[in-house]
Amino acid sequence: MILVVCLNPALDVTHHVPAVDWTGVNRPTAVYSRPGGKGLNVARTLRALGADVLLMGLAGGGTGSVVETALRRAGVPTALIPVSGETRHTFTIVDGSGTAASFNEAGPEVTMGEFNPFRQAYKEALAPAEAVVLSGSLPPGLPVTTYAELIQAAAAAGVPVLLDSNGPALLRGVSAGPAIVKPNLDELAAVSGRCLSASGGVDRAAVSAAAAGLRAAGAEAVVASLGPAGLLAVTGDGSWHAWPSAVAEGNATGAGDAVAAALVHGMVMSRPWEERLRHAVALGAATVATPVAGEFSQDGYLDGLRPVAVHLEEVR
Amino acid sequence: MILVVCLNPALDVTHHVPAVDWTGVNRPTAVYSRPGGKGLNVARTLRALGADVLLMGLAGGGTGSVVETALRRAGVPTALIPVSGETRHTFTIVDGSGTAASFNEAGPEVTMGEFNPFRQAYKEALAPAEAVVLSGSLPPGLPVTTYAELIQAAAAAGVPVLLDSNGPALLRGVSAGPAIVKPNLDELAAVSGRCLSASGGVDRAAVSAAAAGLRAAGAEAVVASLGPAGLLAVTGDGSWHAWPSAVAEGNATGAGDAVAAALVHGMVMSRPWEERLRHAVALGAATVATPVAGEFSQDGYLDGLRPVAVHLEEVR
Repeated sequence: MILVVCLNPALDVTHHVPAVDWTGVNRPTAVYSRPGGKGLNVARTLRALGADVLLMGLAGGGTGSVVETALRRAGVPTALIPVSGETRHTFTIVDGSGTAASFNEAGPEVTMGEFNPFRQAYKEALAPAEAVVLSGSLPPGLPVTTYAELIQAAAAAGVPVLLDSNGPALLRGVSAGPAIVKPNLDELAAVSGRCLSASGGVDRAAVSAAAAGLRAAGAEAVVASLGPAGLLAVTGDGSWHAWPSAVAEGNATGAGDAVAAALVHGMVMSRPWEERLRHAVALGAATVATPVAGEFSQDGYLDGLRPVAVHLEEVR
Repeated sequence: MILVVCLNPALDVTHHVPAVDWTGVNRPTAVYSRPGGKGLNVARTLRALGADVLLMGLAGGGTGSVVETALRRAGVPTALIPVSGETRHTFTIVDGSGTAASFNEAGPEVTMGEFNPFRQAYKEALAPAEAVVLSGSLPPGLPVTTYAELIQAAAAAGVPVLLDSNGPALLRGVSAGPAIVKPNLDELAAVSGRCLSASGGVDRAAVSAAAAGLRAAGAEAVVASLGPAGLLAVTGDGSWHAWPSAVAEGNATGAGDAVAAALVHGMVMSRPWEERLRHAVALGAATVATPVAGEFSQDGYLDGLRPVAVHLEEVR
């Protein structure tokens, strides 16, 4: 079983408005509402890959109930610990040209008294776990050391962790020795304090150096997701750049979470790194090519696994 | 007891974002969430005026629970009939300059099978009711004759109705003979097919004629709310234009609902029309002057009741 932790889930609400009046009253022609938060996307994708999953996290109020009910309906085994605050919304407006504006609430204030029951349940869930995914932002109130603490508890139980977060929570987590961290370009630039682009493109050498820095700080492997430029992995087994032959057009929301799902899935399947990266690139591209955020077509994924669909180059 | 019907309540979520990026990801600095829908505003205002109220309506899912819980906390006696769809959200984004963009969902699809228990509960609640307020939009699935049917049932029980809606639901409702209809300028223009403005201002003669048209179609009295220009009432006792001496600056959201609350409150208190209009103008202005949408200060309201604060002119 893969234990996916989502401490700050959300109800993602998307409004389609053909011609937005940014100063007046709009009546959306379509409204979509689904559970969100990066960990939830990872858990759904792992389920779609056929993996055994348990989603753990914190949820509160009526919005928390909506999230929990929808996850159960989607067949994702879920253990959410109640908190007194209201689970957050994210709200996205998509206009007729496809331009999207998002408004992401920070989430409810969580007290340590509320977090303690989660800690306990998490430690119990580690026993049957093959891997842990810690994904997304921390809700207000929890210390930046929270992921580091959860990684230490997993290490004590012999369970490897993939960490996908940002800022201080990522940096503190790295020092606790996760098996994989998966920053995107912006997150890696922020925690490394480096500029990672050169003449409009990705500066691969700078990304490699920044990733090597996170390894030196404690992570066993670093996989940087570079958007259309694919993935750059720096691991104990070697370093690779993997990217899709054809750049997918579509909705990039959730593509990073698909990459995280593929990486942890490859880890519990004991696939070699080259294979993990091939799967991660194919799944990320299939997610981008699917209009609904965070979903992918199995056909697109399988198509992306053809040897010609992913370029893999060892980085020295 | 005043029975307030809100068939399409909402959870109104407001995000404050100092500098909005309309093409990217925003992190609101403040998030407010409260039950909305015009009927809910009317019920809250009536409670604040000290009236006995029962709020009836339809609610579904986790969002419906959030609305119901918040109403109970606010001390509004509530009887919401469950529906299978999810109660809607409205989202408002307010930027640093105070500009607001709103996104109002249509609401859940309601079946007649779900509406029947409401009908039954409504008929039972009519017995102790002194007046009924029917306010706001109908959720998808309910016929445009819905308000007309509820007005007929109230008439059969000898209970007068204030109707505040728009479009076909308003027109059909008018033909069932409500005691008062309270359209705003846009709503009155739409149902009368008349242009109601002249050289940038309100064309009072055209408003009077359109209101007289709604009386001829069945309404006993018509009170048109004209924004800063106040109220124009056409009743069996006479016609009046009432407007505030000083135009309030502030948040006009909910001011129309405050006017509806004052009008129905005046009706059950058997106040003469001039008094009802004076109270309605004062309460509307006090609501505009209060920053939180749909709330008012008692002091502002009392101040607005001074004879010099409201101009009242008989219209012949």
